[in-house]
Amino acid sequence: MQTQQHQDLIRQLLECAFTCENCATACLQEKDVQMMARCIALDRDCSDICLQAARLLQRHSEVAAEFLQVCEKICQMCGDECAKHHHEHCQQCAQACHSCAEACRSAHV
Amino acid sequence: MQTQQHQDLIRQLLECAFTCENCATACLQEKDVQMMARCIALDRDCSDICLQAARLLQRHSEVAAEFLQVCEKICQMCGDECAKHHHEHCQQCAQACHSCAEACRSAHV
Amino acid sequence: MQTQQHQDLIRQLLECAFTCENCATACLQEKDVQMMARCIALDRDCSDICLQAARLLQRHSEVAAEFLQVCEKICQMCGDECAKHHHEHCQQCAQACHSCAEACRSAHV
Amino acid sequence: MQTQQHQDLIRQLLECAFTCENCATACLQEKDVQMMARCIALDRDCSDICLQAARLLQRHSEVAAEFLQVCEKICQMCGDECAKHHHEHCQQCAQACHSCAEACRSAHV
Repeated sequence: MQTQQHQDLIRQLLECAFTCENCATACLQEKDVQMMARCIALDRDCSDICLQAARLLQRHSEVAAEFLQVCEKICQMCGDECAKHHHEHCQQCAQACHSCAEACRSAHV
Repeated sequence: MQTQQHQDLIRQLLECAFTCENCATACLQEKDVQMMARCIALDRDCSDICLQAARLLQRHSEVAAEFLQVCEKICQMCGDECAKHHHEHCQQCAQACHSCAEACRSAHV
Repeated sequence: MQTQQHQDLIRQLLECAFTCENCATACLQEKDVQMMARCIALDRDCSDICLQAARLLQRHSEVAAEFLQVCEKICQMCGDECAKHHHEHCQQCAQACHSCAEACRSAHV
Repeated sequence: MQTQQHQDLIRQLLECAFTCENCATACLQEKDVQMMARCIALDRDCSDICLQAARLLQRHSEVAAEFLQVCEKICQMCGDECAKHHHEHCQQCAQACHSCAEACRSAHV
């Protein structure tokens, strides 16, 4: 049985992962892609880690709580980097990452 | 820009992946877990492959179309196996897998 | 440029991940699979997390160090569980997990 | 029990995955990163798919053979793209990808 809060967190992790995939793909098409290198690198890590976090929660993994701590950290870092860039995909990603970081912080799994 | 059909397929792949995670976790708690061994094995593969398919679609990967073919196959196999078991989590998983297999088949990415 | 220690750690993470995959697959074939349920569950988590750790190290990810902490924890837990079972695949897995946990602990990435 | 050929293929898939991670990370540091955009995108897909293929082989998955077909395809595409660039990491990646594509082709799993 899954609580609503548990399901909401999974949904938010997936949302964040996919916004990061989208941002990385879009960044690679930008003219100033060199300026976006760190953004792309963090997007990759954040997408991987959020997806894995979502799977661990879905499995009721015994290390879910610890995993959410590193997940919160990468979400915060990725959101902070994205926030520096004016591209719409970066601004959307910043919002999704910061919101997901907040959700990880307040999770009691 | 993403079309609605594209987004629907991603949503269905995620739904299927997470139903498989749920089914594998629940199968491991069943008394007749020995009878569920193939179900658990296929759930693992199906979850991994559906999640990867969703990411490739989100990235507009050049191999998304080929990947959906193997995704359709594992969804069909996993759904067929799950359908043999009366547990509620298996019946739910069978439905999600078969529905996802159909969505992969009709996708024109 | 990669240091030798860095490469050794990546190699050990991969070794551990694949020993866990092997253990989970073999556990599912055992007659006493019900007794192996927690072992299989931890194998799944440990394999996923070790593989991801290896990728983050290979990428020189900014969160590699934090990730290794949760990786160490799951390796320790999985190794402790595997050590309880007499099956050869469990004993091998216990050794790989404990060795990997030690490697994570002593890493200065 | 694993055959030698089976183990060699897994080893080659891991080698290819990690060479792709390395190439993507290095490409993001290049001055002409805009020219490397397709290389980075294919590296990401190739790394993901090779790692997954290795896991499926390790598990003796029922869809391993089909999965190797899409794996061969992405390895060939990624190798062809990398071969166009003079950077050492791209040349190394081209070699690893082409070699892995060949190994996938000749596998009888």
